Amino acid sequence: MKKIEHIGIAVKDLEKSNALFASLFGKEHYKIEEVISEGVKTSFFKSGPNKIELLQATNSKSPIAKFIEKKGEGIHHVAFAVSDIKKEIKRLKKEGFTVLNDVPKKGADNKLVAFLHPKTTNGVLVELCQEID
Amino acid sequence: MKKIEHIGIAVKDLEKSNALFASLFGKEHYKIEEVISEGVKTSFFKSGPNKIELLQATNSKSPIAKFIEKKGEGIHHVAFAVSDIKKEIKRLKKEGFTVLNDVPKKGADNKLVAFLHPKTTNGVLVELCQEID
Repeated sequence: MKKIEHIGIAVKDLEKSNALFASLFGKEHYKIEEVISEGVKTSFFKSGPNKIELLQATNSKSPIAKFIEKKGEGIHHVAFAVSDIKKEIKRLKKEGFTVLNDVPKKGADNKLVAFLHPKTTNGVLVELCQEID
Repeated sequence: MKKIEHIGIAVKDLEKSNALFASLFGKEHYKIEEVISEGVKTSFFKSGPNKIELLQATNSKSPIAKFIEKKGEGIHHVAFAVSDIKKEIKRLKKEGFTVLNDVPKKGADNKLVAFLHPKTTNGVLVELCQEID
């Protein structure tokens, strides 16, 4: 794993949170993107080599809606950049981690992504992501 | 804010979690440090330009003990590297954020740190940290 690619933060109101995080970072978000398959609308901020992704649910079945219902707004996941996501999935399964999707799927920000189940990672939802060439 | 300096993960059993995260990252933690004033024992992993800090409570009054009691194990905070923490605190207070300690305090890993109250940051406990020269 090369670095923290981003952290994902679950928010109720993307517009309001964009303003809040713009105050925090002293700069605006640089991108808005909807991931229809995940039921989320996202925005991205840069912080040096890292990004912060805000996620708002677009429907009540979205994982973000369920997360907020259970835990409230806050940090939802951490994503690590990997060079070869298929190889990483294979390695991590061998190490005993539960990979939620064995086959990488298309995520926001032009990435192939896979998630590890928090029950095998100390309560942390870990995302692996590989840039699509 | 220059980058995500680290994310902090609350764990119940540091030894067990060190082994788990060593499997995840494919390498061992590089440091163990106790911060007596905060009631925590910490360990650090590197991931490129970023770090992952595991935090175990050393007493029942520790903020980490309270966090785990309320929310379970998981991501506890995100820390951003800043060049001038006093200037950042002043700027963020002016922006309306609640700074938990106006005067930076000594944290783990040779840093001056300050925390923003999650109620003003979308449920995210934000740490500012400046390297001590």
